[in-house]
Amino acid sequence: MRKSISIFGATGSVGRSTLDLVRQHPDQYNIIALTANGNASQLAAQAREFSAQVAVVADDSAYAELKQQLSGTSIEAASGPEALIAAAALGADWTMAAIVGCAGLPPTLEALRCGKTVALANKEALVSAGALMITEARKAGATLLPVDSEHNAIFQALQGGRIDQVRKITLTASGGPFRTWTREQMAVVTPEQAVAHPNWDMGAKISVDSATMMNKGLELIEAHHLFPVGLENIEILVHPQSVIHSMVEYHDCSTLAQLGSPDMRIPIANTLAWPERMTTNCEPLNLADIGKLEFERPDEDRFPATRIARAAIMAGGAQPAMLNAANEVAVAAFLNSAVQFLDITEIVTRLLDSYSPPEPSALADIFAIDKETRVRTEQLVEELKV
Amino acid sequence: MRKSISIFGATGSVGRSTLDLVRQHPDQYNIIALTANGNASQLAAQAREFSAQVAVVADDSAYAELKQQLSGTSIEAASGPEALIAAAALGADWTMAAIVGCAGLPPTLEALRCGKTVALANKEALVSAGALMITEARKAGATLLPVDSEHNAIFQALQGGRIDQVRKITLTASGGPFRTWTREQMAVVTPEQAVAHPNWDMGAKISVDSATMMNKGLELIEAHHLFPVGLENIEILVHPQSVIHSMVEYHDCSTLAQLGSPDMRIPIANTLAWPERMTTNCEPLNLADIGKLEFERPDEDRFPATRIARAAIMAGGAQPAMLNAANEVAVAAFLNSAVQFLDITEIVTRLLDSYSPPEPSALADIFAIDKETRVRTEQLVEELKV
Repeated sequence: MRKSISIFGATGSVGRSTLDLVRQHPDQYNIIALTANGNASQLAAQAREFSAQVAVVADDSAYAELKQQLSGTSIEAASGPEALIAAAALGADWTMAAIVGCAGLPPTLEALRCGKTVALANKEALVSAGALMITEARKAGATLLPVDSEHNAIFQALQGGRIDQVRKITLTASGGPFRTWTREQMAVVTPEQAVAHPNWDMGAKISVDSATMMNKGLELIEAHHLFPVGLENIEILVHPQSVIHSMVEYHDCSTLAQLGSPDMRIPIANTLAWPERMTTNCEPLNLADIGKLEFERPDEDRFPATRIARAAIMAGGAQPAMLNAANEVAVAAFLNSAVQFLDITEIVTRLLDSYSPPEPSALADIFAIDKETRVRTEQLVEELKV
Repeated sequence: MRKSISIFGATGSVGRSTLDLVRQHPDQYNIIALTANGNASQLAAQAREFSAQVAVVADDSAYAELKQQLSGTSIEAASGPEALIAAAALGADWTMAAIVGCAGLPPTLEALRCGKTVALANKEALVSAGALMITEARKAGATLLPVDSEHNAIFQALQGGRIDQVRKITLTASGGPFRTWTREQMAVVTPEQAVAHPNWDMGAKISVDSATMMNKGLELIEAHHLFPVGLENIEILVHPQSVIHSMVEYHDCSTLAQLGSPDMRIPIANTLAWPERMTTNCEPLNLADIGKLEFERPDEDRFPATRIARAAIMAGGAQPAMLNAANEVAVAAFLNSAVQFLDITEIVTRLLDSYSPPEPSALADIFAIDKETRVRTEQLVEELKV
């Protein structure tokens, strides 16, 4: 039987990679909904190619173009946040949640409520709304599969094992482009230098997060929600080659690791075919060609982001959502050359110390925290402006 | 409920490591039989400490001492090959088959016939009698768990997956002490140089096998029996640090690997607790301390042993048993300084080319092949004698 699937964020990198895998196995999948933010023409082309039932643009102003490009087909066109939720409520067997930012939270939550399988590539779902997502998934009996290469590696290393058999989880980190730099050198880094990631071809925001290692901080928060082994049992290990995507050490001192080429289609394929495996045309790993894998302890004096994230998890409540929103604003300010590279974690730290909203218990609370944090962070940016 | 266990080869390194794990969890296990070759006093001490039901020495001349040392206890003492088989027939829930050489075949086969779980550390069981062992295990519904660190790593990496989902298996190899040496340098190697293994503390025979890489050839034969993915899909990768014990690549290009410190108690613990996990007091892996893992292609011109083993698998029939017996005799001759280091693989090659016994279909055939091969190899040793 074909697996019915929906992809939220179909025109982004993860969405396109997912469709590339579906394209390799056309008889296995049946597309229900594809959604995009505003790229109506690409979304329409995807919806036509894969005979989707529904295509949704989040941005209402893109609706007319989507409607026009889908004319003459039976594909339903829709737009706006409510249409995204309605598309999630269609209850595909498998949903890819790959919308960037808080806009992805409502459809992701709705997909979880359907009780099917949700592949999670939307960081905010776990960083800002982790407790809420995990609770809803459990209530609905939904299966949550992590797409991030690190969390997917842990998920794979846990197959055939159980979380209560785990002694330690190790999140590997490339260390980013400034791994060997001093604070003095990092003080004068340009946006161009920061977006040049050594291993993965990624967007500007996530590349800067990798350079500050805030990306690993966010992943620590995600891992804490996905794999409840206790924060003190989740370690970060710098591994510049990014070949070992993460590791699980069991109580008997056996460590299971997942390795692979830096191709997001590999973890996506794992979630798409799970509990089976699918063939892919990805590049197989060739360790003899790579020659060596290196490892070193993270240096939280030079890269304080993971320390900040750990403190945010321990403080709990609104702190992880605040950290995420503050970091987004600070990174954008850095990319606009409004603040300097080292200001990013400084701004996040100041924001986290600046106010204490109550613990969020619903999506509306998280949106409110997100909004207020952004306004407050913009003020901090103004104060620090170069 | 306690797991009842028997250990064949209790006084050897694997047997002692197994008992060390049992010692850490005294309320989990119930010892049925312990056996040794001729070390009656150590076996008696073990049998007393763990309140075994039966203690068996293979060597009849050690019986009197065993009997005397167990006087005043309810532990039954026995000796001889038939007593070993009778001990295996007691049908423990879990049996460790760790007797070295062909002497271990009859009790191992008997344990498999009981249809319980057999942890296999006896190389000959798979190298010389692989087809027979696998057939008997299947017939009896027995579970065969590999103890060799490489095969145990593959076994662990396959948990949660299936053999038909595997694209490639990679057996890692330390490369031995002469990994970077030329043939000219290896020509004058002494036994002392050959037994100095870089990572594992092992016996002389297996250390020489590691130095010639025949150990990896034997493991290739074992892997071929345990993990039927096709010989062309089992690769060898030189990895001097011996931290990644082996790897499985799935069709989606995800690679799962098992890593650990060089401590045989780790794979033994995996088989002892399986399908659960037990705690051990082994040294946890610390990759930041290790710093780097290196990988290179094997060089079969300098180290022809794996090529010889692959050819023996493809030829099938009696060849793997012949390879194993010829190698044992050649290594012993080298350790006695009767032949040179490079003669070992040369002797094995000549022996394999020298005669073609029919395919063995029972243990008796394998013993006959083993015996004749040893006689013929001794003649080859005489011809090459230094």
